Amino acid sequence: MRTHEAGSLRADHAGQSVTLAGWVARRRDHGGVIFSDLRDASGVAQVVFREGEMAERAHRLRAEFCVRVTGEVVRRPEGNENPEIPTGSIEVTVTDLEVLSESAPLPFPLDEHLEVGEDVRLRHRYLDLRRAEPARAIRMRSEANRIARDVLHQRNFVEVETPTMTRSTPEGARDFLIPARLQPGSWYALPQSPQLFKQLLMVGGLERYFQIARCYRDEDFRADRQPEFTQLDIEMSFVDAADVIEISERVVAALWSELAGYEIPTPIPQLSYAEAMARYGTDKPDLRFGVELTDLTEYFRETPFRVFQSPYVGAVVMPGGADQPRRQLDAWQEWAKQRGAKGLAYVLVGSDGTLSGPVAKNLSAEEREGLAKAVGAAPGDCVFFAAGRAAPSRALLGAVRLEIAELCGLVDRQAWSFVWIVDAPMFEAVDDSDDVAVGSGGFTAVHHPFTAPEPEWAEEFERSPEDALASAYDLVCNGNEIGGGSIRIHRWEMQQRVFEVLGISREQAEEKFGFLLEAFRYGPPPHGGVAFGWDRICMLLTGAESLRDVIAFPKSGGGFDPLTGAPAPITAAQRKEAGVDAKPAARAAGGSKEAANAEGERSQESE
Amino acid sequence: MRTHEAGSLRADHAGQSVTLAGWVARRRDHGGVIFSDLRDASGVAQVVFREGEMAERAHRLRAEFCVRVTGEVVRRPEGNENPEIPTGSIEVTVTDLEVLSESAPLPFPLDEHLEVGEDVRLRHRYLDLRRAEPARAIRMRSEANRIARDVLHQRNFVEVETPTMTRSTPEGARDFLIPARLQPGSWYALPQSPQLFKQLLMVGGLERYFQIARCYRDEDFRADRQPEFTQLDIEMSFVDAADVIEISERVVAALWSELAGYEIPTPIPQLSYAEAMARYGTDKPDLRFGVELTDLTEYFRETPFRVFQSPYVGAVVMPGGADQPRRQLDAWQEWAKQRGAKGLAYVLVGSDGTLSGPVAKNLSAEEREGLAKAVGAAPGDCVFFAAGRAAPSRALLGAVRLEIAELCGLVDRQAWSFVWIVDAPMFEAVDDSDDVAVGSGGFTAVHHPFTAPEPEWAEEFERSPEDALASAYDLVCNGNEIGGGSIRIHRWEMQQRVFEVLGISREQAEEKFGFLLEAFRYGPPPHGGVAFGWDRICMLLTGAESLRDVIAFPKSGGGFDPLTGAPAPITAAQRKEAGVDAKPAARAAGGSKEAANAEGERSQESE
Repeated sequence: MRTHEAGSLRADHAGQSVTLAGWVARRRDHGGVIFSDLRDASGVAQVVFREGEMAERAHRLRAEFCVRVTGEVVRRPEGNENPEIPTGSIEVTVTDLEVLSESAPLPFPLDEHLEVGEDVRLRHRYLDLRRAEPARAIRMRSEANRIARDVLHQRNFVEVETPTMTRSTPEGARDFLIPARLQPGSWYALPQSPQLFKQLLMVGGLERYFQIARCYRDEDFRADRQPEFTQLDIEMSFVDAADVIEISERVVAALWSELAGYEIPTPIPQLSYAEAMARYGTDKPDLRFGVELTDLTEYFRETPFRVFQSPYVGAVVMPGGADQPRRQLDAWQEWAKQRGAKGLAYVLVGSDGTLSGPVAKNLSAEEREGLAKAVGAAPGDCVFFAAGRAAPSRALLGAVRLEIAELCGLVDRQAWSFVWIVDAPMFEAVDDSDDVAVGSGGFTAVHHPFTAPEPEWAEEFERSPEDALASAYDLVCNGNEIGGGSIRIHRWEMQQRVFEVLGISREQAEEKFGFLLEAFRYGPPPHGGVAFGWDRICMLLTGAESLRDVIAFPKSGGGFDPLTGAPAPITAAQRKEAGVDAKPAARAAGGSKEAANAEGERSQESE
Repeated sequence: MRTHEAGSLRADHAGQSVTLAGWVARRRDHGGVIFSDLRDASGVAQVVFREGEMAERAHRLRAEFCVRVTGEVVRRPEGNENPEIPTGSIEVTVTDLEVLSESAPLPFPLDEHLEVGEDVRLRHRYLDLRRAEPARAIRMRSEANRIARDVLHQRNFVEVETPTMTRSTPEGARDFLIPARLQPGSWYALPQSPQLFKQLLMVGGLERYFQIARCYRDEDFRADRQPEFTQLDIEMSFVDAADVIEISERVVAALWSELAGYEIPTPIPQLSYAEAMARYGTDKPDLRFGVELTDLTEYFRETPFRVFQSPYVGAVVMPGGADQPRRQLDAWQEWAKQRGAKGLAYVLVGSDGTLSGPVAKNLSAEEREGLAKAVGAAPGDCVFFAAGRAAPSRALLGAVRLEIAELCGLVDRQAWSFVWIVDAPMFEAVDDSDDVAVGSGGFTAVHHPFTAPEPEWAEEFERSPEDALASAYDLVCNGNEIGGGSIRIHRWEMQQRVFEVLGISREQAEEKFGFLLEAFRYGPPPHGGVAFGWDRICMLLTGAESLRDVIAFPKSGGGFDPLTGAPAPITAAQRKEAGVDAKPAARAAGGSKEAANAEGERSQESE
């Protein structure tokens, strides 16, 4: 339907007759001559309707009409070139115009900087995608897929599709469920990840698996959460953590090199979970700036200040923060309360080194004396404190640290920081977890129930589950967890012991994971793997602000699709047919075989 | 954990110390020396336990133990080489053995030719996949993905993931449904294909889209049907049928060239639907052999034989079929009755040219005289007839044709035949269709409701829907439909007119496809595409007999997964939480926004 792509035209084409097809992006009338930008996937070219009839017909063109034009490529008159676009030295004098389809007035202008709300954009996502930025994000994601797969294919990884209509794979979230019409009363579950299947593939001797896999978690939607999301899923046999980390770094290095023009220094540094928590108050520290936490528990061991007589006291310094006006210091209190803290204690370090603020007077003279040095504060700084149980106190200080970086402009937006977090705990107390507990014990798995302990904990993780370390590794980029994995348990007995810590009885284990435990009876290989949050990686690579920007048709809050209106009510007939209300019956023996022998002709995959 | 892959060892490695890891595939004791095949993903190598202690420890090895061995590569003694395996000139004398995991006695031996039923294999698919053939099929499928994507990336196609939790996309089958916990009473549907989304991407200006997409159809399971299946999905803008056919042939040619060593002659021949039906009785003819149908309607126009006084009479010739014993001719009758026919009329052509069989005597002398010539039968052949309505009669003869080819060994198992079926009808009478009707009209779409008519039918397909031709093309390989596509409707008004033929009212159209119709208001480009049945293509390329052989974890009859036991009953608590029994409520205004503003920290994609 066309001879050239609009964005491909150059001065070399001058004198050629071309046919283009695309959209009317802009129209300007100049005394009877009509100029228009014709946009297609390759870019834009200026088309000109000069002659009487052409100009006449071009008058009815409106924004986003889809057209086909034929004309001659000519060099633009001197002084009229536009060096900002690749086709800026030419224009096409149109001799034939065909309107392929018209456009109604647009619900929003397709400009680069949109004022319109996201809901409107998503409702008309097909218009939003005609804009340069969203189109670029979707194309870049396609490239990311290609680059990652190339790295893995070169290393002999095998791409395998695993089922998405399967059995519940409890991994810390609720399952989405699907009624099985042919087995009324029974339900499939959408997988939270291919975890169990990739482990079964390792038992099957595949050794090197990958998949860009759709995963599903029925969570209470918070910011930037999607009910279906994508991970680059990798699993390997006969490996240790270093092997998985090495291949992971190859993938990530190739992505950043090709798509962000950044060569990640490898090996990527590793930080223990304990150290990350102590220094940054989080297991996904943003290392593009300093501002570390200081542990003052020891420092305040004899303090007269009641609030600091706590199992943990820590502090973080805001450079130049002593200048903050009163209302900003009040705003910090509000901010802390919204995060569930009682408030945010602080001390201001005067230009002469004297301390002020409500906390200062509660400290002993000796404590006041040494404080600035202990936390590394300079005159003019503000010191924020948290005291209480270590975990929530550090989390609060970690958040304060991020807020300080934001307020003080400490984050280099061009910088990339990568770090592996290793030696994470295997278990956490159920009370500290957001996850849906898999079992009924006092502990839940920090990663998932299939994560192996570090070798030194292999024999005794039950004795103090809260201290046991997992053979796990999470990759963090600029404060975002972009991937995580572990060496898996491959021995039946060890898997049972982990289930026991999680409060999963033998019967429950048999019911939920019987097929995995059974598989482990037949010479399972040692194995491990990793999964990358593909949406998040694409978001970082494209510089997008939301996961939704790198998803072609994202859901908005509450899992609602503004475009299709899904989910939607179903009819009583659909409900009846789907067997939603049927009672489960024992599966008829031989039923499946009978069905399999029946005859079928039409190919189901094709349209 | 290892220095070499077992299958990589060659005579060059002799003298080197190596560490291997894999499975004990075979064990043979020869007077105190134990020989074993060590298998990993790369192949097998013979390992030998010679010395006293090693042989002792090797005694406990059983089939499929997972082991790590260290030893020296040595050339096998002259005469002991095994030229049938790549590592056949060496063996490894083991000096260290570590059992990584043991194996219980196997439920079936992992031999190449299995006697065990498929249900047992699928229940232990992780063992089945250790066998050479299943492993090869899964690896070849991964290669097929790579090859297809390479072709498409080179042509600037963009890979896009489309949603799988969406709204019903009626395309001839039932939808699988998912209750939406956060919008109780509302349900998502799993997509029957990405059809609507890929069309929206075209409206979005993407121009060239592809995806290896998971699709879902809740059908009554017949042989070789899976509830979830995969298609290679392609869509292009500003194209006609020839453009889509060209790119399709590039993909298919690359696959067959690289994976089957066969260069498909392109362009692939095209056959009209009408001609395929007339000559082969099917729209997916196997052209690896001749045996065409002969239309005898005209020939028998004046026949005295009541059965042949029909709107259609046709015949197909079985070479040498006159020799069939009586019981085989009876078996044909049974066979025809099982297909819903009353029987299968036939005439035997004697070696002297005289006709016999029950039909012969009912024919006029003139009809008997000319029959052999009219159908191209030689002395010794058998002529089978079908009479009645054209469609079922041809379908019967088409099936007879396949049966003849089978019985007479006419199919060259090494041959590949490709053909495009074009000019198919847009509509068929609802009574003739197996599909779930999308609307309530007397017609249903042969392809799907978004298929454009051939240009000459654009203005008048409503006048005689049964005659209107679609701008569609199906690719057939060896009698299997492996792909199909069409130019799509891109104008709002035409889409409405098609819906009307299908008996979909404006209100219903608005309810079901409102978002597509809305999108078509904003300058939609002309577009078209194709979808390949990926499971079927992989089945053909690997020489597998069933779709299940090229799916890592297939379902068996009735959609049951013998490995995980899915689907399974859910608990009352799950049912309640999922909101299965909630009444749909009007969506709370602003609810989604509130949820989106709430705070979330944990990255959802990572493990």
